[in-house]
Amino acid sequence: MVPNTLGGMATRVGIVGASGFTGAELLRLIAGHPDLEVVVATGDSQAGTAVADLYPSLASAYGHLTFTPYVEGVADDHGLDLVFCGLPHGASQEIVPGLLDGNRVVVDLGADFRLKDAGLYPTWYGHEHTVPHLLAESVYGLPELFRAELAEAKLVATPGCYVTTATLALAPLLAAGLVAPTGIVVDAASGVSGAGRPPKPTNAFNTVDENFVAYGMLDHRHTPEIEQNLAGVAGADVQVLFTPHLAPMNRGILATCYARPTAATSTDELRQVLHAAYDAEPFVEVRHEPPSTKATLGSNAVHVTAYADDRTGWVVALAALDNLTKGASGGALQSANVALGLPEAAGLPVAGLYP
Amino acid sequence: MVPNTLGGMATRVGIVGASGFTGAELLRLIAGHPDLEVVVATGDSQAGTAVADLYPSLASAYGHLTFTPYVEGVADDHGLDLVFCGLPHGASQEIVPGLLDGNRVVVDLGADFRLKDAGLYPTWYGHEHTVPHLLAESVYGLPELFRAELAEAKLVATPGCYVTTATLALAPLLAAGLVAPTGIVVDAASGVSGAGRPPKPTNAFNTVDENFVAYGMLDHRHTPEIEQNLAGVAGADVQVLFTPHLAPMNRGILATCYARPTAATSTDELRQVLHAAYDAEPFVEVRHEPPSTKATLGSNAVHVTAYADDRTGWVVALAALDNLTKGASGGALQSANVALGLPEAAGLPVAGLYP
Amino acid sequence: MVPNTLGGMATRVGIVGASGFTGAELLRLIAGHPDLEVVVATGDSQAGTAVADLYPSLASAYGHLTFTPYVEGVADDHGLDLVFCGLPHGASQEIVPGLLDGNRVVVDLGADFRLKDAGLYPTWYGHEHTVPHLLAESVYGLPELFRAELAEAKLVATPGCYVTTATLALAPLLAAGLVAPTGIVVDAASGVSGAGRPPKPTNAFNTVDENFVAYGMLDHRHTPEIEQNLAGVAGADVQVLFTPHLAPMNRGILATCYARPTAATSTDELRQVLHAAYDAEPFVEVRHEPPSTKATLGSNAVHVTAYADDRTGWVVALAALDNLTKGASGGALQSANVALGLPEAAGLPVAGLYP
Amino acid sequence: MVPNTLGGMATRVGIVGASGFTGAELLRLIAGHPDLEVVVATGDSQAGTAVADLYPSLASAYGHLTFTPYVEGVADDHGLDLVFCGLPHGASQEIVPGLLDGNRVVVDLGADFRLKDAGLYPTWYGHEHTVPHLLAESVYGLPELFRAELAEAKLVATPGCYVTTATLALAPLLAAGLVAPTGIVVDAASGVSGAGRPPKPTNAFNTVDENFVAYGMLDHRHTPEIEQNLAGVAGADVQVLFTPHLAPMNRGILATCYARPTAATSTDELRQVLHAAYDAEPFVEVRHEPPSTKATLGSNAVHVTAYADDRTGWVVALAALDNLTKGASGGALQSANVALGLPEAAGLPVAGLYP
Repeated sequence: MVPNTLGGMATRVGIVGASGFTGAELLRLIAGHPDLEVVVATGDSQAGTAVADLYPSLASAYGHLTFTPYVEGVADDHGLDLVFCGLPHGASQEIVPGLLDGNRVVVDLGADFRLKDAGLYPTWYGHEHTVPHLLAESVYGLPELFRAELAEAKLVATPGCYVTTATLALAPLLAAGLVAPTGIVVDAASGVSGAGRPPKPTNAFNTVDENFVAYGMLDHRHTPEIEQNLAGVAGADVQVLFTPHLAPMNRGILATCYARPTAATSTDELRQVLHAAYDAEPFVEVRHEPPSTKATLGSNAVHVTAYADDRTGWVVALAALDNLTKGASGGALQSANVALGLPEAAGLPVAGLYP
Repeated sequence: MVPNTLGGMATRVGIVGASGFTGAELLRLIAGHPDLEVVVATGDSQAGTAVADLYPSLASAYGHLTFTPYVEGVADDHGLDLVFCGLPHGASQEIVPGLLDGNRVVVDLGADFRLKDAGLYPTWYGHEHTVPHLLAESVYGLPELFRAELAEAKLVATPGCYVTTATLALAPLLAAGLVAPTGIVVDAASGVSGAGRPPKPTNAFNTVDENFVAYGMLDHRHTPEIEQNLAGVAGADVQVLFTPHLAPMNRGILATCYARPTAATSTDELRQVLHAAYDAEPFVEVRHEPPSTKATLGSNAVHVTAYADDRTGWVVALAALDNLTKGASGGALQSANVALGLPEAAGLPVAGLYP
Repeated sequence: MVPNTLGGMATRVGIVGASGFTGAELLRLIAGHPDLEVVVATGDSQAGTAVADLYPSLASAYGHLTFTPYVEGVADDHGLDLVFCGLPHGASQEIVPGLLDGNRVVVDLGADFRLKDAGLYPTWYGHEHTVPHLLAESVYGLPELFRAELAEAKLVATPGCYVTTATLALAPLLAAGLVAPTGIVVDAASGVSGAGRPPKPTNAFNTVDENFVAYGMLDHRHTPEIEQNLAGVAGADVQVLFTPHLAPMNRGILATCYARPTAATSTDELRQVLHAAYDAEPFVEVRHEPPSTKATLGSNAVHVTAYADDRTGWVVALAALDNLTKGASGGALQSANVALGLPEAAGLPVAGLYP
Repeated sequence: MVPNTLGGMATRVGIVGASGFTGAELLRLIAGHPDLEVVVATGDSQAGTAVADLYPSLASAYGHLTFTPYVEGVADDHGLDLVFCGLPHGASQEIVPGLLDGNRVVVDLGADFRLKDAGLYPTWYGHEHTVPHLLAESVYGLPELFRAELAEAKLVATPGCYVTTATLALAPLLAAGLVAPTGIVVDAASGVSGAGRPPKPTNAFNTVDENFVAYGMLDHRHTPEIEQNLAGVAGADVQVLFTPHLAPMNRGILATCYARPTAATSTDELRQVLHAAYDAEPFVEVRHEPPSTKATLGSNAVHVTAYADDRTGWVVALAALDNLTKGASGGALQSANVALGLPEAAGLPVAGLYP
């Protein structure tokens, strides 16, 4: 172990599957974290490549680091205190059991430990879950809902990016019984980084630039996860139609959510409920204007608000965040901080990049 | 009159309020129209400026043309057969009565002649209508719904850009009684050109680039116009909650519309209804994939489709178009062609700019 | 043959290698051409795919057309009058000899017939030319320099996109002896479509968006072609250092060219020379402001200007165009029009898409 | 004074002219600085506006802060240790003399104290300098060239954004005598934030998006500043032709610089000189690939490289940075850290935002 900059001992961090965008974002954030040190970054497809060559943005911070192939025992070999897994869905459940250890925290960024009902995996992900007993053990990495549980967690399941957005917009309203649990529409738009690093026709510049399009009609995999979270706070089954869109920008998610009020309500009442839920949160801002994705760029912030429409009888709740920061790697780091007993906001930018 | 390129006589065209984006788009389209010739383009704020200096994109086509101040009698002075008005809302009703003449067609691109119920103007536009009798006379410039009426029209009210999009997505489904007329949500995103040419904080590059944001929450002015159109085809009052968003792109609108089916339906049934409505239309394509704004860039095309979701009981109808072409100037020119007895597609690009 | 819309017989067109961006742009332009009809579009990698599925922007114009595999004899089988080849460099020279026929015009969009000196191919393209005798026969597809030769051409070599830009900026100045033929710097930036359709890391949205970067340092293949053109007008060897850059936009090239004056000169003198060269050209505009790529978007226009700097003794010449239109498919169509005796501007938009 | 988070006393910071983009960037960076606390932010045009309303990206970090009007004595009234001035050119020289005080550091971000020769101001800025004696006293805020002087500085003149870029690309090569001091061309492109916050036609989204254009032909004000810096290291007069371009992106500058070698040189030799100059620098990376602006987004990094072209006899040196970070507010903060004896990299992100 090397001493950290505060004179104590740095927490030794490994990132498995570090060559994707969530890996790069973890590396960016950890470069500014006073207590963490990345000692190994695996990436099978990029093994042997210098981090600085794949991501020149990290050249000054990680000039020494090279992606290595994943090998069993990597966590023990390197004495890791904390492991982030940024593997494709389905791959994490193969290796996480081997990484878990009494003195180590594992934070998964994939979907493998998010759904509590193992029976949902065949339906939404096309495969049986191979270690269903870990679904009960894993803690869902949304500190706004599960802070106490995270403090004891050894395995953290980081939420999907759209899921964090929609959940934080709607959860307080459902928890307070202000909106009905069915008939909910979540209409959201994301920047292109949500599609990952490997080039494909759908993330080619000329496909995406100057384009706005819906995708994943009716069956996007984040649907059951949104429903699971909202059912948890509502104490009732929740049904959501989720329509994601792709917007021509690097980062950012905005969710515009439509729900039916259970009784006459008002914009003021909705916002009071949001304020009560979030005013003590380090990263959630209740706004009086429609939130914009750009206001959260590069920071761990989430901006939320809500409106009640008397004329048509709809409640509209909105939330915006950076899909790679709060929506993925920032959220993962926030949960890791809680699980490790570090200051929750350590290494997490509170101010966004603007303009 | 000067002879046109086909050896006949060109239709003499004037554009009042030509210096805005809809004016520039009209000039672009008319440059490719075999029968029309622009003989005057007014623009008070740009009077004296060469068209080629404000819009270098038009330099080769209109090297000779200069914006002039609007003067009363401009239509008679120039012997205009066709006048497009691209003035701000409220300004058209001041001058249109003076432009109307038995042998002339006036196509307004603003909101002043769109709503049939004069009582809606104070509510949504903040002023009384000064010539309400013309609301009955004007024909709504959506050939897909009002082709026959347009053939006789002297005054055409070009629909709002969002309105064309939402109307073409939903109208056949409401006309067929497949979806309920209330509880409809129209969630749409537009490129920035919809905000017009004058610089303001909300259309500055650094505000908009890499940003996605909702605006006009609950009270956007296109709401009553969507409701009017859909009520017309549904034969019943229609209630719509409309949420526009701003996407970081120059052009394009996508409307994602949510409605409740009146009875069990299917994606197949919805699309058959769309095909029946649109297969003979020159500019509406029924797609089997979610439509993308980019597929319509610079053309007069509209792409539509629909889905039925068994799980949540929602119908989702989507439409995409170029807000300046089919959503404004192209739609206006299409209506003008119909009103003048010219080929409906003359001067209107059928293929979009891609990539 | 089918009759065209003017009552005559349409020219039968085939596009070999039609599934790339230059193929799509040809299809877009020909959709608006009164005399041409595309009867076959080959694309081996997309064989069997409907044009409308790969390019929904072409759905209304080419709903019936499907990409077919290339087969020998395609031109004879379909009775083609005109063939465009949009194949990768090196592939055209394999098939063009078989396509040539006394009554047919072949317009190649690749590099295989651009360089007159066969000895340059091994150096710049890495392979010997297999049909060097055709290099003398082919006519370079830049009507501004070779209009008379194009009128007799059976084989046309469409210039590279950067080459058209730099050539049109500098040629009149070199022809007039105003600038020296060596020490020239061409610093240019292009939109991403120049990299073609296949997805790769360098044209992925997240790589390119919000990025500006140089590439092809010192050895870009358009260098010898620029030098060939300028040497032709200068009557002397020309040496150019060419540095291309990638800008985060779909289309457009701006070339900023630096040269040394041969004697004291002035901005006025430079522009007079440009005006003399271009005022009769249908697509070249001499501007008094720095040209912008956006002013040429989607049109066949080229905007040029020049400045003389007394203080440092540099001449700066600039040109802007749309790399897919005038820089590729539009330039190719313009040459085809000349070669076929059609109106030179037929099917070529003179007004750009703005905003 | 309030204690800072490390238990010591925070340095009290004021920002004069804080409502512009450089002010917002200072606020972003200082939010992550362990030793600085912003106690006052003036902005006459935004006086009374909450920082969080003008810049929602700063809501979580500065929820309490409101822009105030500038008043004389502000630095004394608030006990400021450090003042940043983000005023328009010409305005700083009016107030800086009053801000200077034995125990305070003033860091100006405008041009008023950059040029050592007061006689250059009338030529390039159109006005006489009113406090020319301060030009000798001010230290140019480029730690890579003036670190020792900055350690003693009371008044720091932050370089222009293009100037930092071009200077860091060329200075080591001129200092080593590898390239000639005249005939230099600096061809550069910037993101739009360089144009500042107030909306104007030239920074409107629809003007800039999908556009690339040169501006400031021959006479951009950063020219004499580049020449001053390079003359300082070359020990000879330097002459530069500088051509800025506007690229459709928020942030980033790339300078591509052309110079003539004084003797035969090589890419290897050039890079060795760059490595010798920069390997000990905290924020300058010598790259083996062309630097990209995006690799520096949001960080204080500068990426440089150089090439020698045997064929044409040119040296090409390139540098990239974020114009608002290292090119303005980050550079200013780096200089302030040096002047205050704080760790030079405090508060300055070393890793960029990617993708």
